[in-house]
Amino acid sequence: MLELYFRPMACSLASRIALTEAGIEARYTEVDVTTKKLTESGADFLPLSALGQVPTLRLEDRSLLSENSAVLQYIADRAPNAKLAPPSGTAERYLLQQWLSFVGSEMHKSIVYLIFSPDSNEGALAFARKRAEKSLPVLAKHLAGTPHLLGESFTVADAYLIWALLLLRFSAFELDPAIQDYLGRMLARPAVRDSIALERRLSGR
Amino acid sequence: MLELYFRPMACSLASRIALTEAGIEARYTEVDVTTKKLTESGADFLPLSALGQVPTLRLEDRSLLSENSAVLQYIADRAPNAKLAPPSGTAERYLLQQWLSFVGSEMHKSIVYLIFSPDSNEGALAFARKRAEKSLPVLAKHLAGTPHLLGESFTVADAYLIWALLLLRFSAFELDPAIQDYLGRMLARPAVRDSIALERRLSGR
Repeated sequence: MLELYFRPMACSLASRIALTEAGIEARYTEVDVTTKKLTESGADFLPLSALGQVPTLRLEDRSLLSENSAVLQYIADRAPNAKLAPPSGTAERYLLQQWLSFVGSEMHKSIVYLIFSPDSNEGALAFARKRAEKSLPVLAKHLAGTPHLLGESFTVADAYLIWALLLLRFSAFELDPAIQDYLGRMLARPAVRDSIALERRLSGR
Repeated sequence: MLELYFRPMACSLASRIALTEAGIEARYTEVDVTTKKLTESGADFLPLSALGQVPTLRLEDRSLLSENSAVLQYIADRAPNAKLAPPSGTAERYLLQQWLSFVGSEMHKSIVYLIFSPDSNEGALAFARKRAEKSLPVLAKHLAGTPHLLGESFTVADAYLIWALLLLRFSAFELDPAIQDYLGRMLARPAVRDSIALERRLSGR
């Protein structure tokens, strides 16, 4: 069975959404990313993830995979019938990788992370706001013309974007109506709604 | 023929290295990312890339692909004999995606971009230095035990990392001996050396 190391409401939420959408049963092990220990057992997390980051996925052969883009594609490919990623080698698969990278680079690392990281500061926040002024309109324009990032099908790139948008909303970013509409549609999906509700309870928010 | 929209010594250098390593002939079109125009023709770049970012790759069917992780995997898959990426669906392919994401998230967006972006400021620089203190030792430890990011074979993840390390060195970051040794090995590859020499000339550095 797959084991997901996660922190409630951290970006590993995208992996939980993907696993739930895919109907894949998994073990979920909570990490305290401040102490870098597993919450329940108290075991050290750093031997499993040198940067102490979630998501980290333990595969059946005991090997470990990290980084959202890789973990999400792995999960999608485990359950091809759920169609959470276009098949490898198709033009659409490269577009999925493009959007996963857009969410990771522009939304996550250039905005959300700069706001929520313990290393953040005033200048970093100002930088994040400037980046948001540039990239959120691009995202809004794209989402105004498509039900999901990749068109008709929900993919793991949507799972990742949902998490980033939730955190932006939480930090009082003004979201364009096209982005709000998209997020509303996504939050109506049972797997999305249930995953978020569960992690909100766990995070005490 | 593929067409790479690039800026000399920007992260699109990784795509040039990958195309050269793969032996793929391509057209290279320079972008002035400040004015968001094509340097030679003066045509607007924003219709091709809403964020005005390089690399942007135009495929033979005239469609466009952006984001390093996607562009690099596309290039690698175009020339399977060059073995710049493990085959799709293998465990190693997900590890490639992990390292592409590590370079993109941790090296590029969390350090290099915060230093070189026109939106940078003192606080953003301080943030970048704190991130570097955490992620560079993790990278150094990994590179001390392997000739390339993924073991015996040079992959497109190395092409991306080479660029990030060149810019860190340029901005006077102290690089661990294991990272310096790795970079030295990579710079000895003709495709890497020639690509960098060409872009340095174009950038006037």
